[in-house]
Parts: sequence; C-alpha cells; structure tokens
Amino acid sequence: MPTIRVELMTGRTVEQKRALAAALTEATVRTLGGNASSVDVVFFDIERHDWATGGELWLDKMAAPPASAG
Amino acid sequence: MPTIRVELMTGRTVEQKRALAAALTEATVRTLGGNASSVDVVFFDIERHDWATGGELWLDKMAAPPASAG
Amino acid sequence: MPTIRVELMTGRTVEQKRALAAALTEATVRTLGGNASSVDVVFFDIERHDWATGGELWLDKMAAPPASAG
Amino acid sequence: MPTIRVELMTGRTVEQKRALAAALTEATVRTLGGNASSVDVVFFDIERHDWATGGELWLDKMAAPPASAG
Amino acid sequence: MPTIRVELMTGRTVEQKRALAAALTEATVRTLGGNASSVDVVFFDIERHDWATGGELWLDKMAAPPASAG
Amino acid sequence: MPTIRVELMTGRTVEQKRALAAALTEATVRTLGGNASSVDVVFFDIERHDWATGGELWLDKMAAPPASAG
Repeated sequence: MPTIRVELMTGRTVEQKRALAAALTEATVRTLGGNASSVDVVFFDIERHDWATGGELWLDKMAAPPASAG
Repeated sequence: MPTIRVELMTGRTVEQKRALAAALTEATVRTLGGNASSVDVVFFDIERHDWATGGELWLDKMAAPPASAG
Repeated sequence: MPTIRVELMTGRTVEQKRALAAALTEATVRTLGGNASSVDVVFFDIERHDWATGGELWLDKMAAPPASAG
Repeated sequence: MPTIRVELMTGRTVEQKRALAAALTEATVRTLGGNASSVDVVFFDIERHDWATGGELWLDKMAAPPASAG
Repeated sequence: MPTIRVELMTGRTVEQKRALAAALTEATVRTLGGNASSVDVVFFDIERHDWATGGELWLDKMAAPPASAG
Repeated sequence: MPTIRVELMTGRTVEQKRALAAALTEATVRTLGGNASSVDVVFFDIERHDWATGGELWLDKMAAPPASAG
C-alpha cells in the first residue's frame, strides 16, 4: 500500500509506462512518506471503443473532423 | 463524475458498445440530472475463462450440454 | 454479468440510487438483450475530498467563489 | 455477492484459473456461509510491463540478473 | 501479486474477514504456488442500498415479505 | 483520461490528499504530456481490518509487538 491503478488510453509505450510508474511512485513517497517498495502501480490500457464521455465513444470523437473544418 | 464501469462477457460489437454507452449516459442524466459531458463509461471485456460463478468458469458452463439433453 | 459499477459524488439519496439502478439495468437489457436478473449495479460514493480533476480536489473547486464573482 | 476480483500476472493457464476459481469459492462459502451460486470470481491478467512495485516494472525486475550473480 | 479484491455486503465482522483473508490466501498459494507474502486481499463493504440485481436494490429485495407469505 | 485510482490505508488527511492529487497529476502530465484537466485522481481509504497481506490483516500486523521485543 498504497496501490495506484492507472487507466489510460491504449497506445502508451513500455518506456512511457516505465517512466510514469517511477514518477507516480516518487510523487507518492515524496508526499506521503513511507517506502517506495510498498507502492504498487498497475496500468490498464483502455481501447478508444471502450471509453465514452458524454455518451460518445472516444473512437468516434477522434474520428470526427475538427469542429472548425469548413 | 459519475464514472460508469461495465464488465461484460467478451463478444459485444463496437456498435453495441456505442449504443450502450449512449443509453447508460442518457439514463444517468435523466435520473440524476447534471450534464452528459461529465459522465464517463468504460467497458471491460471479460473472457469466459476469466469469469466464474458458483466456482465454475463460464467457459465450462457454456460448454456443458443443456441439462435436459438425453 | 454484466456488472455495472458507478462511482458518484457522495450525496445521492437512496431513492436516486433506486431509480438509477433500475434505469441502468433497463438501458442495458434494452441495448444488449439478455435478462435483467443477470445485471448487477454497484454504487460507490466518493467524497469531494477524495476526487480530484486537473490536480485539484473537488472539495476545493466547489469551495472557490464562481470565476465571475467581483 | 460476494464478488472476488483477482489481478494476477499474465501467464496462468485456464486450468489454473479453473482450480483457483473453485478454491476461492469454496474458501468463501466455508468461511462466510451462504451459497456458492452467489459467489462470482473474475480474473484480470496483468502484463509484466503493466505492474510496478517500488517504481520498477516487473518486466525489468524479472529481466535483471539475480543479485548474487558474479 | 496476486491481489484479491472482495466486495461483500456490509455486516461481516472483523473475525470473519480475518478468517476469509487467511482462507483466500491459503487457497491461492495452494493452487498457484508462490509465496503467501505476495498475496494481498482487500475487502470492500457494500451497503444494501448500493447493490442492485435485476434493477432492484438489495435493500428492497430484503425488505419485501417472502413470496410465499399469505 | 488517464484516471488514477489510489487505494491507501485510512488515516491520511485532506491536506495530504490535496498534495498527493496535485503531485500525481503533475507527474502524469510531465511524463505522458497532455492536459492536467483530463487527469482524474480518486482516493479509496482502506481500513486496517480490510487489508491483508500474506493472509494476515494489517490490523493484526500492526497490533503485534515488534519481533525484537524481549
């Protein structure tokens, strides 16, 4: 403990996850104290067709032409 | 907020998820009020070999012949 | 299955949760088919000091005077 | 209810999950009473590059030579 | 790892949780091997008004007179 | 997105959560880029009698006298 569970859009590289795991662990120990070895970070990749905001899949949001398009 | 997380058996199409995300968001706004843009829906596909009820994997439940079979 | 897990800001009444559980279950069966008895809905109340967006607790966001205030 | 959600490192076989689902369900009914049919077990496979402890991905921990290596 | 997260209806005693944590950990080590010290069990108490099945809160299901009542 | 969900032992102050939410959001934006406004952090307080490691509740681990005690 603490356990940090991160849901993020699919597509991040292992290198980005390596850096984020280190950064989140460091931020936690810096803020709460305690030992880094007790901090777990778990990543969950979410596909764009599995995440909706405002009732619309991000798959569709990201496929739509920008609002300003003529 | 609210964040709605849906675990469902693997096999639903993107179209079904599109419809379900919209329906869940609409039901939430209709019931609680607030703005659809603040509602997130996240889907988690669960394989039949990753879900058990009564101690039995759904993989096995669905492979077994119907009880009435001769 | 499906299991629907809803995180929402603390403060909703039992009556609101009663209505939301029914509405989410109905929306799920209407959209995916299947039997309502197989749909579970679980609510998680989140305190304003336990939810942050943009690095700021909602406790603080909601305590701040509206931007337009003189 | 109860719902038991198990996060485990990717790589377990269906047979291991079959046995673990049965064992967890039996342990729950033996300890809490109630009916096995009301116990759900859900498995989540986590890749080694998606799980970090102490700020280090298990992908890297498991790739590093044992400490005692000359 | 593995991490076992158990959602159960509010009302279990610390003694029941003590026994269930031990039983689930033992079942996991017996089935998957590995070390008990790497197994975490986390309990989440769910109120009857926060859990619905078939669109009906368990608060209401448990308040209703048994079907056979005259 | 990303959504960061932090389970931590009960007892942290609002001030600690304020600082941790900011630190985790900053670490995420620094590492992945993107906009802080799209980062959500949610805290879940876990009681010592609801968290077990190695089959033993932390309630009991923390109540036991230190190993070296005469």
